[in-house]
Amino acid sequence: MPLVNVDLAHAPYAIHIGRGLLRQTGLIRSLLPQPRVAVVTNTTVAALYLADFKAALEAEGIAVVEVILPDGEQYKTWDSLNQIFDVLLRERCERKTTLIALGGGVVGDMTGFAAAVYQRGVPFIQVPTTLLAQVDSSVGGKTAINHPLGKNMIGAFYQPKLVLADLDVLCTLPQREFSAGMAEVIKYGLIDDAPFLAWLETHIDALMAQQPDVLAEAIERCCLAKARIVAADEREEGQRALLNLGHTFGHAIEAGMGYGVWLHGEAVAAGMMLAARASQLLGHLAVADVARLERLLQAAKLPVEPPALPFEQWLEWMAQDKKVVDGHIRFVLLRSLGHAYLDRLDPDQLRRLLA
Amino acid sequence: MPLVNVDLAHAPYAIHIGRGLLRQTGLIRSLLPQPRVAVVTNTTVAALYLADFKAALEAEGIAVVEVILPDGEQYKTWDSLNQIFDVLLRERCERKTTLIALGGGVVGDMTGFAAAVYQRGVPFIQVPTTLLAQVDSSVGGKTAINHPLGKNMIGAFYQPKLVLADLDVLCTLPQREFSAGMAEVIKYGLIDDAPFLAWLETHIDALMAQQPDVLAEAIERCCLAKARIVAADEREEGQRALLNLGHTFGHAIEAGMGYGVWLHGEAVAAGMMLAARASQLLGHLAVADVARLERLLQAAKLPVEPPALPFEQWLEWMAQDKKVVDGHIRFVLLRSLGHAYLDRLDPDQLRRLLA
Ligand SMILES: NC(=O)c1ccc[n+]([C@@H]2O[C@H](COP(=O)([O-])OP(=O)(O)OC[C@H]3O[C@@H](n4cnc5c(N)ncnc54)[C@H](O)[C@@H]3O)[C@@H](O)[C@H]2O)c1
Ligand SMILES: NC(=O)c1ccc[n+]([C@@H]2O[C@H](COP(=O)([O-])OP(=O)(O)OC[C@H]3O[C@@H](n4cnc5c(N)ncnc54)[C@H](O)[C@@H]3O)[C@@H](O)[C@H]2O)c1
Ligand SMILES: [Zn+2]
Ligand SMILES: [Zn+2]
Repeated sequence: MPLVNVDLAHAPYAIHIGRGLLRQTGLIRSLLPQPRVAVVTNTTVAALYLADFKAALEAEGIAVVEVILPDGEQYKTWDSLNQIFDVLLRERCERKTTLIALGGGVVGDMTGFAAAVYQRGVPFIQVPTTLLAQVDSSVGGKTAINHPLGKNMIGAFYQPKLVLADLDVLCTLPQREFSAGMAEVIKYGLIDDAPFLAWLETHIDALMAQQPDVLAEAIERCCLAKARIVAADEREEGQRALLNLGHTFGHAIEAGMGYGVWLHGEAVAAGMMLAARASQLLGHLAVADVARLERLLQAAKLPVEPPALPFEQWLEWMAQDKKVVDGHIRFVLLRSLGHAYLDRLDPDQLRRLLA
Repeated sequence: MPLVNVDLAHAPYAIHIGRGLLRQTGLIRSLLPQPRVAVVTNTTVAALYLADFKAALEAEGIAVVEVILPDGEQYKTWDSLNQIFDVLLRERCERKTTLIALGGGVVGDMTGFAAAVYQRGVPFIQVPTTLLAQVDSSVGGKTAINHPLGKNMIGAFYQPKLVLADLDVLCTLPQREFSAGMAEVIKYGLIDDAPFLAWLETHIDALMAQQPDVLAEAIERCCLAKARIVAADEREEGQRALLNLGHTFGHAIEAGMGYGVWLHGEAVAAGMMLAARASQLLGHLAVADVARLERLLQAAKLPVEPPALPFEQWLEWMAQDKKVVDGHIRFVLLRSLGHAYLDRLDPDQLRRLLA
C-alpha cells in the first residue's frame, strides 16, 4: 500500500493510499491522545460512508461525535464552522479530542480550520473522499473558509496528524467531480514533472476508468510532489506558490460565475489553459504545447475555455488573490510543459489574453 | 526605558515599556514589511488616542487603514472579527499589511486572532492601553474570541512582532479597570515570585496613584515573568497553565454573571481568593496567608468574595474550561504565597468552598 511521508520538521505525518482504508481505523486509533473523535462530514458523504466509518471507529473503542454539514462550496462559511463549534462545545470536547474530516476539499478545509482554532488548536485527521482532496487539499495544511469578498480568505496553516486516502470511495464520485480532481493531477505534471505529464497522457483512459493500480500510482505521485513542495516551503513564501498554477485565473472564474457554478477543478483547468496561452504570448510555449495540454484536459473531460467575463471583472477578482504582493499579481506561468515559474503580466498582455 | 525580550525560538520579539511610546512610531516603522498598517481599536480608545497615533504613523510615511469596533467584552465575537475582515478586504490589504491592536485586552485578543487567520496570517503589533493588556494579554500570543457557549473558545496561538506599552495612556483608564489589571499583577507574585509580592505590598499605594517609576517597574517585572513562562511553554502544555491562577473560578464568575458584568480582573481576584481558600482547606496556606492576600487585593480595590452562584452553575461553567483534561478540571492552587501548582479538587472540597 503506497505511503507518502510529509517531512515537516515540527510535525511530520503520513499519507496512506489504498483500498478499504475507511475500515482500517487502527491507523487512526494509534494516533489519538484520547479515545474520542468528532467526525465532520456532509449530508452526501454521510449517507454513503458515515455509518461504516463510525462502526469501524467504535469497534476500536473510539467514542464518536458526529457533525453533518450541508453539502456545497456555498456552505464553506463561518456559519458552518460555528455548527462544528456548537457540537464540540455542547459535547464538551476538549483539547485532546481529535477532529476527523470525512469528505472532499470543502469538508477538509473547514474541519482543518475548525481544528486550528477550536480551543486554539486540537489534533486533526484527514479522510479525503474526492480525487481533488486526495491529491491536493488534504495534504499540506492549508485550511480556510470563504468570505463574501473572497474565497479562502480566512484560514490557517494547520497540519493533519494523518491522511487516509481510500481509493474505494471514489467509485461513488460523480464524473464531473472526478474530472475536477484530474485538473489538479495534471497540474503536478505541468509544474515540474514532464515525465509524469507523459505518463498521464499514456494512462488517461485507464485513469478515467478508475483502474485501481493506475489510480493509486497517480495519487501517490501527486502526494509525493505536494509533500516535497510543502516540506520545502510550508507557509507559501516561495516555491509553494507554483502549486497555484491556473488558480489566479481559476479563482476569478469561480468568483465571477458565483461560487459553486464552476467546480474548483474546472476553473483551474480553464485557468491552466490561460496560463499556457499567456506563456505562449511570452514566447515560452509553442502552439503545439498548448494543443497538447488542451488534448489532455479534454480527455479528462475538463473545460479548456474560460467563461465570458468582462475584463474589469477579471482584474477585480484577480486583484483579490492572496498572491498579490505590493499591489502586483504574481502569475504562475510555464517556461515549458513541466517547468512553472512566477512572473507578472502587464495589463496589455492580460487584455489580449482575456478579451 | 525598560525593554523585555520574549525569546521564542521561531519568533522572538521585544516589549517596550515607557512614556510617550505612542508617538515613537519609528519602532513600528522598522518592522513593517510594507509601509501600510491597519489599526484596530474601539470607540473609546479611538476618541482618546487614535488621531495622535495615526498622525505619528503617517509622519513616518506609513499608510493607515482604521477599524473602529464597538467597546465591550460582549463584542469579542465573530461579528466584530468580520468587521475587521470587511475593511481589510475592501481596502485590499495583503499578506504584508501589518495589523496593529490599539486598545485593551478585548481589542488585542480580537486583532491578534484576525491577524492569525486573515489570509492565513499577517504580521501583528500590540499597543496595549490598559494595565491588564500591558502586563498580561498583549504578551504571549494567546488570541481569541468568545463563543456563546464559552469564553475565548475560538482562537489561536499567534505572536506579535512587537509590543509597545505606553504608561501615559493609563491615566485615562477608569479606576475600576486599573484595579482589574492589578489582579493580574498580583497574580505574578503569587505564582512564583514571593519577593515581588512583598514589593507590591510595600508599593501598593504608589502603584494605585500611578507613580510612573513604580508603575514601570511593576509592568516590567510582570512582562519578564510572563515572557519567561511563555518562552518555556508557548502552547500551554505545562508550566504556562500556572498563569491561570484564579482563572478557572474567574471564568465561571464572568460567565455565570454574564460577560461584562464582572470585569475579567475582578473575577480573577475573587478566583485567586477561592484558590487561596482551597489551598488552605488542603493545609498548604495558613489563615494569615489568606488574610495577607485579602488585604493586598483590597488595597488594590478588588473584590475578595465571589458572587452567589448556584453550585451546579459553578460546576457547569468550570467544566467548560480549556484546562479540562480527560474530564477532570485542573486547578491552579498554592503551596505557599509565591508557589503555585496544578491539582484536582474533588466534588466535596469544591462544595465546601463554593457553597
Ligand atoms: N486546502 C488546500 O490546499 C486546497 C487545495 C485545493 C482545493 N481546496 C478546496 O477544496 C474545495 C474543493 O474540494 P472538492 O473538489 O473535493 O469539493 P467538495 O468537497 O465540494 O466535494 C465535491 C462533491 O462531491 C461530494 N462527494 C465527496 N466525496 C464523495 C464520494 N466519495 N462519493 C460521492 N460524492 C462525494 C461532495 O459532497 C460534493 O458534493 C474547494 O473549496 C477548494 O478551495 C483546498
Ligand atoms: N490573551 C491573553 O493572554 C489574555 C490574558 C488576560 C486577559 N485577556 C482578555 O483580555 C480582555 C480584558 O482586557 P481588558 O481588561 O484590557 O479589557 P478591555 O479591552 O475591555 O478594556 C477595558 C476598558 O477600558 C477601555 N480603555 C482601554 N484603554 C483605555 C485607556 N487608555 N483610557 C481609557 N479607557 C481605556 C476600553 O475601551 C474598555 O472599555 C478579556 O477579554 C480577557 O479574556 C487575554
Ligand atoms: Zn486547487
Ligand atoms: Zn487573566
